[in-house]
Amino acid sequence: MNDTAPVTPGHRRFESEMQVRPDDLDMNAHVHASRYFDYVLAARYDQMERCYGMGMEAFLARGLGWFTRTSHVEYKRPLKLGERFVVRTWIEKFHKDGVRVEFEIRKHDSAKLAAAGWADFTLVNLANGRATPLPPEIVAKYAV
Amino acid sequence: MNDTAPVTPGHRRFESEMQVRPDDLDMNAHVHASRYFDYVLAARYDQMERCYGMGMEAFLARGLGWFTRTSHVEYKRPLKLGERFVVRTWIEKFHKDGVRVEFEIRKHDSAKLAAAGWADFTLVNLANGRATPLPPEIVAKYAV
Amino acid sequence: MNDTAPVTPGHRRFESEMQVRPDDLDMNAHVHASRYFDYVLAARYDQMERCYGMGMEAFLARGLGWFTRTSHVEYKRPLKLGERFVVRTWIEKFHKDGVRVEFEIRKHDSAKLAAAGWADFTLVNLANGRATPLPPEIVAKYAV
Amino acid sequence: MNDTAPVTPGHRRFESEMQVRPDDLDMNAHVHASRYFDYVLAARYDQMERCYGMGMEAFLARGLGWFTRTSHVEYKRPLKLGERFVVRTWIEKFHKDGVRVEFEIRKHDSAKLAAAGWADFTLVNLANGRATPLPPEIVAKYAV
Repeated sequence: MNDTAPVTPGHRRFESEMQVRPDDLDMNAHVHASRYFDYVLAARYDQMERCYGMGMEAFLARGLGWFTRTSHVEYKRPLKLGERFVVRTWIEKFHKDGVRVEFEIRKHDSAKLAAAGWADFTLVNLANGRATPLPPEIVAKYAV
Repeated sequence: MNDTAPVTPGHRRFESEMQVRPDDLDMNAHVHASRYFDYVLAARYDQMERCYGMGMEAFLARGLGWFTRTSHVEYKRPLKLGERFVVRTWIEKFHKDGVRVEFEIRKHDSAKLAAAGWADFTLVNLANGRATPLPPEIVAKYAV
Repeated sequence: MNDTAPVTPGHRRFESEMQVRPDDLDMNAHVHASRYFDYVLAARYDQMERCYGMGMEAFLARGLGWFTRTSHVEYKRPLKLGERFVVRTWIEKFHKDGVRVEFEIRKHDSAKLAAAGWADFTLVNLANGRATPLPPEIVAKYAV
Repeated sequence: MNDTAPVTPGHRRFESEMQVRPDDLDMNAHVHASRYFDYVLAARYDQMERCYGMGMEAFLARGLGWFTRTSHVEYKRPLKLGERFVVRTWIEKFHKDGVRVEFEIRKHDSAKLAAAGWADFTLVNLANGRATPLPPEIVAKYAV
């Protein structure tokens, strides 16, 4: 049985621009390792609404939520106090009950890579906490 | 009209011991200013259950929650990586629809003061987000 | 002995626009109480550089830093997922060795007040951790 | 050229017990995805000092620091408000200039797995930010 649904995601890449906050820094004055994935999650929330046309609120209104199943982050160059950066994300593939999202975080000024990686997100029925297959109309919106 | 309910809180002081995590530090390798209030909130959650005998889950089960109305923190000595500390809190007075909590955060080893202050918390009906008077049975549990 | 230096701050108000990140939310889906002060600190870093013309790096280069001595936050209306907001800050008065900053956080769309308050910051000599009087050239830059 | 140094780590597993803080929760009242890796970093700091006998301060005193190169987290069961949990970590292998650490986070009461994964950490010369080979005396302490 194949875990991957027979859809061809369009791999369209979307971008969100953000800025480092002081509370993101660690004692080396670099962004703390775990915050890069926070930036990815913030970019996804932004892009779900703005780019795919179906934001988190629309999922919640249907009793659905997205849980993170796996995160994988490779750290390339540290972001520092006040730096502007761009988070680019795209759907690499659809699973039966979720998506594989890939991402890049690049410095705004130099376009140099600060971090890159991927995450698997599972669609969950919030009433019982169980994974649920992606409804076709959601796949349609997200397969761009 | 008096905002303070005619109860005499017992002012009993309760303590929770905690330890600084690396993600709590700022670029000066001190605990970031906003995290001291997080420690107070963590201590209150712990003490609500363990010391007053009515934890946050019991409030949620009645459709009630606690919202922070005011926080006031005075920073005395920085906490550093891995330091153990004790958060002592007590109810200073009851408002009609909430409590004034005072707190001290002391270093575990020296008992020196790291931070002190107070916060007002309001009891809220989660269904409509409105403040609600403290039910007598809750006052009874908390007026120790 | 007067703790307040004989300067008349211009009380000029500066603004930084920001957006709520998912990691700022609490279990009520509102911004967690301690994060409002993080927003204020982020706004100050931005405005120190952009509006006063002397950013944190310039202080660090002189061996100086700013430590928070007191924070006071009044919570008015919760900020929610993805909301845009504006942090307005200004210097209310100069202390001998620091500043009193006041702030307002308003929702971007409605201009309604989400939080307001003030904080005292002390200028510190990073070599010994001691408070240090504000040099006149710093007062000149900040008394706008 | 082989990136893996010819040492056989002892794979000894060390444990740190911790508790969820309210500021760790997300809007689903589960621990926010990025915080699990914060728990791992906190456990490593604790165990470096307490279990290996060479804490972060000892590295800093030599002008050395540890940077995260990769983090990989698989999320199994959510941790909730106030839950106690145990973070078990061990060195899976030595790289020439760092270590691969594996980890498990288990609920304290049930021993059920909340999260598991691994991270690569690189030893860095803080003066120039460059990776540096592990000195033999550090390998000796950490190859237990």
